[in-house]
Amino acid sequence: MRNIEVYEVGPRDGFQSVGEYIPLETKFQIIEGLLSAGIEHIQITSFVSPKSIPQMKDAKDLASKCAKNHPGTDFFALVPNLRGAEAAWESGLKWITYVVSLSESHNRANINRSHKDSYTELQKILKTYAQMDICLDVATTFGCPFEGKKSEEDILTFLKPYVDCGIRTVNLCDTIGIANPVQVRNTIDAVRNEYPSLDLQVHIHDTRNMGMVNTLAAIEHGVRKVQSTLGGLGGCPYAPGASGNLATEDLVFMLSEMGYEMNIDVPKMIELSKYQAEAVPKGKFSGHLYTVAEGNCNV
Amino acid sequence: MRNIEVYEVGPRDGFQSVGEYIPLETKFQIIEGLLSAGIEHIQITSFVSPKSIPQMKDAKDLASKCAKNHPGTDFFALVPNLRGAEAAWESGLKWITYVVSLSESHNRANINRSHKDSYTELQKILKTYAQMDICLDVATTFGCPFEGKKSEEDILTFLKPYVDCGIRTVNLCDTIGIANPVQVRNTIDAVRNEYPSLDLQVHIHDTRNMGMVNTLAAIEHGVRKVQSTLGGLGGCPYAPGASGNLATEDLVFMLSEMGYEMNIDVPKMIELSKYQAEAVPKGKFSGHLYTVAEGNCNV
Repeated sequence: MRNIEVYEVGPRDGFQSVGEYIPLETKFQIIEGLLSAGIEHIQITSFVSPKSIPQMKDAKDLASKCAKNHPGTDFFALVPNLRGAEAAWESGLKWITYVVSLSESHNRANINRSHKDSYTELQKILKTYAQMDICLDVATTFGCPFEGKKSEEDILTFLKPYVDCGIRTVNLCDTIGIANPVQVRNTIDAVRNEYPSLDLQVHIHDTRNMGMVNTLAAIEHGVRKVQSTLGGLGGCPYAPGASGNLATEDLVFMLSEMGYEMNIDVPKMIELSKYQAEAVPKGKFSGHLYTVAEGNCNV
Repeated sequence: MRNIEVYEVGPRDGFQSVGEYIPLETKFQIIEGLLSAGIEHIQITSFVSPKSIPQMKDAKDLASKCAKNHPGTDFFALVPNLRGAEAAWESGLKWITYVVSLSESHNRANINRSHKDSYTELQKILKTYAQMDICLDVATTFGCPFEGKKSEEDILTFLKPYVDCGIRTVNLCDTIGIANPVQVRNTIDAVRNEYPSLDLQVHIHDTRNMGMVNTLAAIEHGVRKVQSTLGGLGGCPYAPGASGNLATEDLVFMLSEMGYEMNIDVPKMIELSKYQAEAVPKGKFSGHLYTVAEGNCNV
């Protein structure tokens, strides 16, 4: 079966959930481990205020080190504004993620902006850094803690000005892990039908144990690029005890078993996941594979 | 959408994984909680040797208490032999599960019998307790730790003598959580095609994070009866750290969100799952929902 591309976002979405600072060298080792296991696309950091997310205070150093040591590799970073885009460009990155929430209340809570201001800021980035590729992360696409679920029509309407201003890559994010497979299939079909030229990705959290099933639903409705994090590191800092992200090794194992061409070394990923669980002891992991032991099992 | 019937097997497959004895009263409370949340089918225990599974030493007392307090309710129990069937009958149960593994090596490891001896023992039960309903649990249907995966042809051949001797209900078990959705779909299609009159169930472990996706694959290929355990309690006692069963509340939530008629009270199930996690502190839980807190989440 056709290839599915995994976009590993653990060094951003996973690490940012860890309160205790992870040394730059540890981050870099995990990123190199991912490359060595065959992962080709990695979101390595976010260029945000160190005051709001201290874990990302080394963004510029880490991004520069990655870009310098692995030229030509598809590293990308999240940026909330023009200043972040500038820092990413100066660090040698060619591709950035710009995030806006489908729900305006969540957009204000997450990045303290109205929808209008988010759109205006993006225009500045597009104008100043036309040479960079930009992916639009649409947070709360499948549900918001404040506003609930939106209709497919709402999603299409929301996307229109972004498509019109030149956005070609859109990442539909299930920020709180509330999507279900029927909703994912219908949403993907609606977006593909309305905007057939868009390059779609999905980013599905595993909060309610639906990370695998929703990501597969998206794949089986035509999405070829999916996001996940090593070991499932991540999750919602405001929901103590809740599970994290979808674990990359679990996803890759399933897709490989199903016959998709993945070209990713699962045993290496599991080893790396175990290493990460030791190196990032305060992290919240939800991956299953790195705890699977060999042996007999009863019914 | 049509109704899906949940067969809760936690009091058997969950409790048996807990080394420390759970008081009969606690077990009974959880069973009553399940009924009160709308669960209609519960595997309450197994009639096995207390030497091999001490947790089940109260099987007869618990089954009698359930049958007496909730007459007409669909309680069932696992039995490995004629003696177990006798005990189940005497306790007032009308329905038993008889387990045999598709892989002969696993059958020997699990219940210390050849395939031939398993079949012979079942004939004794069928002859002596013709008045009871029997479900055949086919362990390792989707893979075995010793013999790997079998072909669909192997599964059909294995099932033939059981179908011929009158078995009408078959539960296909992914004992070690190694199935993938393509395999589940193909297996279900093959079995339904060859034995259209069989009443099929699936029992999918969540060992590799595929419990939800494989159970949904079975449902979307026509299976209407699915097994799971409250809180995902269970898992493989020979795989330390490995995740447990598929959590009933996670499954019911997903199916309800997808539009299936479930008639199960999810908030009640979550409360019961939390209660169970406190009452059975040595258990290994893999459910997600009972840890989901309300609140804002970032992208």
